[in-house]
Amino acid sequence: MTTVMGAPSGLAAILAQQSGFDAVWSSSFEVSAFRGLPDASLLTMTDYLRAAVEADRACDLPVIADCDTGFGNALNVAHMIAEYEAAGIAAVCIEDKVFPKVNSFSERAQQLEDMAEFAHRISVAKAAQRNPDLLVIARTEALIAGGEVDDALRRARAYADAGADAVLVHSKAKTPDQILEFLGRWPGTCPVVVVPTTYYTWTVEEMRQAGVAMTIYANQGMRATVSAVRRIMTLIHNAGSSATIEDEVASVDEIFALQRLDEWLALSRR
Amino acid sequence: MTTVMGAPSGLAAILAQQSGFDAVWSSSFEVSAFRGLPDASLLTMTDYLRAAVEADRACDLPVIADCDTGFGNALNVAHMIAEYEAAGIAAVCIEDKVFPKVNSFSERAQQLEDMAEFAHRISVAKAAQRNPDLLVIARTEALIAGGEVDDALRRARAYADAGADAVLVHSKAKTPDQILEFLGRWPGTCPVVVVPTTYYTWTVEEMRQAGVAMTIYANQGMRATVSAVRRIMTLIHNAGSSATIEDEVASVDEIFALQRLDEWLALSRR
Amino acid sequence: MTTVMGAPSGLAAILAQQSGFDAVWSSSFEVSAFRGLPDASLLTMTDYLRAAVEADRACDLPVIADCDTGFGNALNVAHMIAEYEAAGIAAVCIEDKVFPKVNSFSERAQQLEDMAEFAHRISVAKAAQRNPDLLVIARTEALIAGGEVDDALRRARAYADAGADAVLVHSKAKTPDQILEFLGRWPGTCPVVVVPTTYYTWTVEEMRQAGVAMTIYANQGMRATVSAVRRIMTLIHNAGSSATIEDEVASVDEIFALQRLDEWLALSRR
Amino acid sequence: MTTVMGAPSGLAAILAQQSGFDAVWSSSFEVSAFRGLPDASLLTMTDYLRAAVEADRACDLPVIADCDTGFGNALNVAHMIAEYEAAGIAAVCIEDKVFPKVNSFSERAQQLEDMAEFAHRISVAKAAQRNPDLLVIARTEALIAGGEVDDALRRARAYADAGADAVLVHSKAKTPDQILEFLGRWPGTCPVVVVPTTYYTWTVEEMRQAGVAMTIYANQGMRATVSAVRRIMTLIHNAGSSATIEDEVASVDEIFALQRLDEWLALSRR
Repeated sequence: MTTVMGAPSGLAAILAQQSGFDAVWSSSFEVSAFRGLPDASLLTMTDYLRAAVEADRACDLPVIADCDTGFGNALNVAHMIAEYEAAGIAAVCIEDKVFPKVNSFSERAQQLEDMAEFAHRISVAKAAQRNPDLLVIARTEALIAGGEVDDALRRARAYADAGADAVLVHSKAKTPDQILEFLGRWPGTCPVVVVPTTYYTWTVEEMRQAGVAMTIYANQGMRATVSAVRRIMTLIHNAGSSATIEDEVASVDEIFALQRLDEWLALSRR
Repeated sequence: MTTVMGAPSGLAAILAQQSGFDAVWSSSFEVSAFRGLPDASLLTMTDYLRAAVEADRACDLPVIADCDTGFGNALNVAHMIAEYEAAGIAAVCIEDKVFPKVNSFSERAQQLEDMAEFAHRISVAKAAQRNPDLLVIARTEALIAGGEVDDALRRARAYADAGADAVLVHSKAKTPDQILEFLGRWPGTCPVVVVPTTYYTWTVEEMRQAGVAMTIYANQGMRATVSAVRRIMTLIHNAGSSATIEDEVASVDEIFALQRLDEWLALSRR
Repeated sequence: MTTVMGAPSGLAAILAQQSGFDAVWSSSFEVSAFRGLPDASLLTMTDYLRAAVEADRACDLPVIADCDTGFGNALNVAHMIAEYEAAGIAAVCIEDKVFPKVNSFSERAQQLEDMAEFAHRISVAKAAQRNPDLLVIARTEALIAGGEVDDALRRARAYADAGADAVLVHSKAKTPDQILEFLGRWPGTCPVVVVPTTYYTWTVEEMRQAGVAMTIYANQGMRATVSAVRRIMTLIHNAGSSATIEDEVASVDEIFALQRLDEWLALSRR
Repeated sequence: MTTVMGAPSGLAAILAQQSGFDAVWSSSFEVSAFRGLPDASLLTMTDYLRAAVEADRACDLPVIADCDTGFGNALNVAHMIAEYEAAGIAAVCIEDKVFPKVNSFSERAQQLEDMAEFAHRISVAKAAQRNPDLLVIARTEALIAGGEVDDALRRARAYADAGADAVLVHSKAKTPDQILEFLGRWPGTCPVVVVPTTYYTWTVEEMRQAGVAMTIYANQGMRATVSAVRRIMTLIHNAGSSATIEDEVASVDEIFALQRLDEWLALSRR
């Protein structure tokens, strides 16, 4: 069972590693939020690749890049594969929605891509890769778009048949019931990935028993950042000093340790 | 009295604006920490400019860019001015240390640049600007390097004479005593900026009365991020679920509000 | 009559200025060719913006950015306007094809965007701009897609009505006949821009008399680069020395002059 | 004998490969010229890395990145190694001048770095690499700075002893005499690289016989670009049409072939 933590920055990637996670997720929701923009295909492949690279360079964990819809059609997917694998990213994930997309948790209608067209993109992705170790994860938004488990299974099968190394079945239900039904009926062609943002009471141990291969905590770090930063900025502004918040924030020395300042400075010694 | 908050990302810039600050500081310490690298001139002008631009595009506040030592010699400073002003950044700040520098709070010896050479760079910066509104802040590290208030005054005067629009006198003392002495003896040639990271009990109101024109809370947001993100990542990893942290992190809907998702989506309506 | 030269780099922008052109065109065809990629929406807004910025910073001419289809839907167009105007780009041009597009000179079928949808994007672009000086050029590919002059006129009118500051009517005919018919029947709502890549015998003076406001030489510089660089690389490789090509390439001193090396070095003098 | 061609862009890299060269050189002189800036450490490691990556992604040849002085001190060199090798660049080259440097062909005085300090940087570079295939080339500017062959030999030996995989001995003499003396006295600790920009009559075959392992044609492509682009821009501007230059520039179809447009478009077929 692989547990994955969202990391929109090198700093988050380091903290994810120190906290014991197995891999990091370079999330389009987190990365766009850090830019102050909606998760609606406004940031580009160039922007997302850079974020994935920054996470990759900062930690020793593999990076799984959330590549939205693949950024266009089959040509864009082939280009994406070439760029991400050359940059050393371990895995990419694309979802079966039409570009430009809207974040899955938005109530806005979610427009699914034609299944055969998306399966074609998966096969183009797999054919384009030169590094045999790159993983391509196919994410189906069938449930997000209001479909049934049948729809999710049909799409996931098509993508696995097209060569996907894993399938991610996304859901915004409050419980894992749909996911459990999916897992129960999944033929096991390839591993299954889940994102328990809304059905967060489901534990890693329960997931494992149900047959989940990988779970992604996709946005909790960014949400913690917002609440913490908003709180201390407001306190500092209102108090006219940072005295009251010093005890609850990391010290400058802790930051130096995260940056491995001493190790770096030792390099200058001859 | 202008109060300024560090903002290494567009997200932090939005939160700084919502918290009531007047401007944001694009801090080399924060930006390098978010990349997982020490604040030791490893990131480049290109990296720092991009961070300043991302903060600028996300909020309505002016951005003051921490430009380290100016990234080299007088030519680098002239290039920096051209790039930052063309990108729409409101103000830049350069410090009188030798490139490559080390963060001011490090115990590592701090190597000051020759005063006349640094004053020359300030005059080159002012001569290079085409937009009359761009502000150039000269930061002296005299106290950081172990000098006396006399040294700081001598350098600050030289930089003001060279055309600096403001001087930043940095200190890592636990109290504002050195800064108070500086302010008491400062001829008032141009406004004085302070960074109360270590002497954090000094309040904005006390600074105002002492003659400070601008105060910068340079790294508290990043330090709050580290403590909060480390905490929730550890809790999620150890619990095998995010159930226990849901109440203390911002909701997905709060993130959508920060991203102004509804406003953006309204654009597609004809 | 404004004459515009394609400039995929700062160097080309400097040469365009020295050659007497009034503005530079940051061409998606040229920029993607310099990356070795087809002009098929593989490069992203981030990539194109960077190319436009590099041209802008290197010369004193205004930059007109070829922004493809606007990079997606109305949201992408609004984001594009925000980014380009904040970066100081003088004008943007978007075309009424579906994203992802293919270069107009390709024999591949060209898929036009719905006219009302594209007009909506023009109105969103104009509403999004904060700088009143930014120009938005609407480009119709009606003729490129095999349509009649009637189609081009209908679309150009709709875009002008939606607020476009100018319309670009593109054609890949060998003669300017279609363009002449368009100009003869154009109500004059806003200025007309042309790109004489295929109907290259038509002169600037003839265009002026026919009512053209702006002409863009969109790709000749890149095509000259390819023929010249291929030639000298082959000669050097085959001869095993660069002796035979020294007389036909610019000297190192000419490059220093283009880079204004002496002016830059003078900055270090105190 | 490895022959290497300068390639400041993906396009140039493709042309270098088609012309028969064995590798490409991502030259600081060419890359800065394409930005319209002097080769004086104004562009940053970020800028140069991006140029090297663009060349690398566009062709199948290995890329040798001209990394100036290493961009600062030993810390900067270690960071550079981490970034370049993670990005998939085959080789890096650093030179023993003080940052910020000036182009070697400038008459401006060239300031050499302390030899022991530079040798330390080479050893830091070699210790920092994780990929055993990355090559680190040490370039001595001893002759450029007015030194004797003795100086060049002493420095080259120190860098080879520190672990350099090859040494580049640079010269701006009109003849290869100094280089020949160097080669005659070189103990052969590691391969020798030359850059025959000024002593261009020396042929590859003569170099091979003299013991050169690699030769770099570092800037001829950019110089050909300048002369060709200047010529056709001037002709178009003066003639008011591109009619007279059509025969001497590559056709649009040739560009499509370079971009492999048909191969890319075939990807969309299901």
